[in-house]
Amino acid sequence: MALLFTSTPARLPVWQSLFAAEGLPLIPGEEAVTDPAQVTAIACWVPPADLSRYPNLRAVISVGAGVDHLPPLPDGVALSRTLAPGIEAMVRDWVVMATLMLHRDMPRYLDQGRAGTWQSHPVALAGSRRVGILGMGRIGTLTAGSLQALGFDVAGLSRSGTDGAVPMFAASDMKRFLARSDVLICLLPLTPETRGILNAETLSALPRGACVVHAGRGAHLDTDALRAALDAGQISSVMLDVTNPEPLPSDHWMWLDPRVIVTPHVAAQTDATEGARHALSVMRALRDGTPVPGLVDRARGY
Amino acid sequence: MALLFTSTPARLPVWQSLFAAEGLPLIPGEEAVTDPAQVTAIACWVPPADLSRYPNLRAVISVGAGVDHLPPLPDGVALSRTLAPGIEAMVRDWVVMATLMLHRDMPRYLDQGRAGTWQSHPVALAGSRRVGILGMGRIGTLTAGSLQALGFDVAGLSRSGTDGAVPMFAASDMKRFLARSDVLICLLPLTPETRGILNAETLSALPRGACVVHAGRGAHLDTDALRAALDAGQISSVMLDVTNPEPLPSDHWMWLDPRVIVTPHVAAQTDATEGARHALSVMRALRDGTPVPGLVDRARGY
Repeated sequence: MALLFTSTPARLPVWQSLFAAEGLPLIPGEEAVTDPAQVTAIACWVPPADLSRYPNLRAVISVGAGVDHLPPLPDGVALSRTLAPGIEAMVRDWVVMATLMLHRDMPRYLDQGRAGTWQSHPVALAGSRRVGILGMGRIGTLTAGSLQALGFDVAGLSRSGTDGAVPMFAASDMKRFLARSDVLICLLPLTPETRGILNAETLSALPRGACVVHAGRGAHLDTDALRAALDAGQISSVMLDVTNPEPLPSDHWMWLDPRVIVTPHVAAQTDATEGARHALSVMRALRDGTPVPGLVDRARGY
Repeated sequence: MALLFTSTPARLPVWQSLFAAEGLPLIPGEEAVTDPAQVTAIACWVPPADLSRYPNLRAVISVGAGVDHLPPLPDGVALSRTLAPGIEAMVRDWVVMATLMLHRDMPRYLDQGRAGTWQSHPVALAGSRRVGILGMGRIGTLTAGSLQALGFDVAGLSRSGTDGAVPMFAASDMKRFLARSDVLICLLPLTPETRGILNAETLSALPRGACVVHAGRGAHLDTDALRAALDAGQISSVMLDVTNPEPLPSDHWMWLDPRVIVTPHVAAQTDATEGARHALSVMRALRDGTPVPGLVDRARGY
C-alpha cells in the first residue's frame, strides 16, 4: 500500500515528512516505481496517461479543489478532490477583495490614476449593493457569510435552493436571482450544465450596470458576450481570476481594458501541508475501509 | 433656535425634509440669514470666517469624521464631529479592500496586466500576515474585527493600549508594535503628535518588505521617506486614500509607480441622511441641555 506522488516537486519534502511520520510509503514520481502493484493511490494534478499499469489502484487524489480537467477513471478507482480549509479561505479572500474593488469603483480609480486624475465619485454603502453568488458549496457559503458581515445584501443560487444563512434561489429561479444581482459572483464547478453559463442571456438578465466577479473556471465565460455587454453598458466592470482562453494571450484585449481586471488564476493554491494531510486521510480511509474524504460524484461533476 | 447649513448643496433637500419633520428651523446658507441671533449651530465642512456675527452660536458641527481642518472656535462654542455608522463602515470597507489588495499582490498583478503577462506567484494565507492598526478608535476597532474575521493576525496601537478583541500595544510600545506589522494601517486622527508619524524612522521599524495602508490624513505621511523606503525594498507596496500633498498633482511620481495605488480621498463620504440625523441629535441636545453627541476635545484633537 503506497501513494504515488506526481504533483509539484517543490511540495514533495513536506509530503515526504508527513508520510514518514505516519509510516506510510510515498513514491516520489513514476520513475521511482519499482513494483506497480504497490500503488494504492495517486496524488496528481493530471494522472499518468496509462493507469492500467497499476492493478491495485483504488483512488486518484486531485491536489486542487476542481476536478473538471481530469479524464474518466477506470471502474473501481475513486476520485477525491483536496478538501483544505486553506483553499476555501484563499478563494473567499480573493472574492471579497474583488467584490470590494468593484463595489468601490477601483477599475475607474485605477484608470484615473494612470492619467494622474484626482477626482472622486459618490460612495455607496455596502448595504445598498445586492450580491448574488452562483454556486453555494463550501466556498460559496463561506464567502456569503463574509460579504454579509461587511453589510452586503447577499443571496445565493444552488440546485436545491435551500435557505441557509442567506436567502437562496433554486436553479429554476435563475432569472429572478440574476435580476437582483448588482454584483454577480461565479463560484460554480465546471460541469456540462454550467459550461458557458456566463453568456449573453445571463448577462442581459442582470440589472443594468452590474458587475461580475469570476472565480469559477474559464469555460464558464463567453468572453465575446462579456465584451458586448461591457460595450453596451449592461456590465460596468468585471474581475476575473479565470479566463477563456486561459492563460490569457499577452495581446488579448482584456489586459488593457480599464473595465476588466484579470489575475492569473491565483485565487487559491494548495498549501503543501494541507494537501499532504488530505492525501493521508484518503490513504487511511482506503486502509480502514471508511468513506473516502472529498469523494467526487463524476456524474454530477463535483 | 436654528441650524445654519453651509455644507454641500446637493445634500440640502434631505436635511430640509428631516428638519421640517422635526419642526426645527434650518437656514440654507449664510445669505439666507435674516436674524443672526437665531443661529444656534452651524453644520459645515469649514465654518464661516467671522463667527462673531452669531451671538447665540453654541455649536459647530463638522459634517465629516475628521476635525483637523477646523480653526479654533470662540469660547463657549462646542465642536461636534459627525458620528455616522455609514462613515465608519465605508472606511472599514476601503481598508479591508486595501489590505486584501496588498496581501494578495494586486500591485504586482496590475503591473503584470499592463504588460499582458500571465504569471502567478505564491499565495499566502491571511493567517500568516500580521496586521497592525495605528489608531484604535471606533473605525479602527470595527476594522480590526473585520480583518480578524478574515483570519489576519491583527494587533492595534492606542494611547492607553487596553486590550479589546485584539492584542493592543500602548503608544510607548510603538517600536515593538511596528516590528510585528507586516501590513501597517494608519487610521489616526491628525493632531500635533501624529503629524508626520509615517516617516523614515517608523517605516524602517517595520519588517523588511512590509506594506502600508493609509486612510488617516495626508499630513501623517512623509512622502519622500516613503519613496526612499520603497526604493530600498524596506516597503514593498502601499495603498493611500490620502496623500501629501493632497490633492496629488497630476505629474506626481506616485500615480505611475507600480508599487503605489492611490484613491482620491474616497474611503468615506457622509451620507446626507446620516449627516442630517447627527445634526438633529446635536440640536436636540442643545435644546434639552444634554451632552452634545460627537463632542470633540480640541486639546486632544479628536
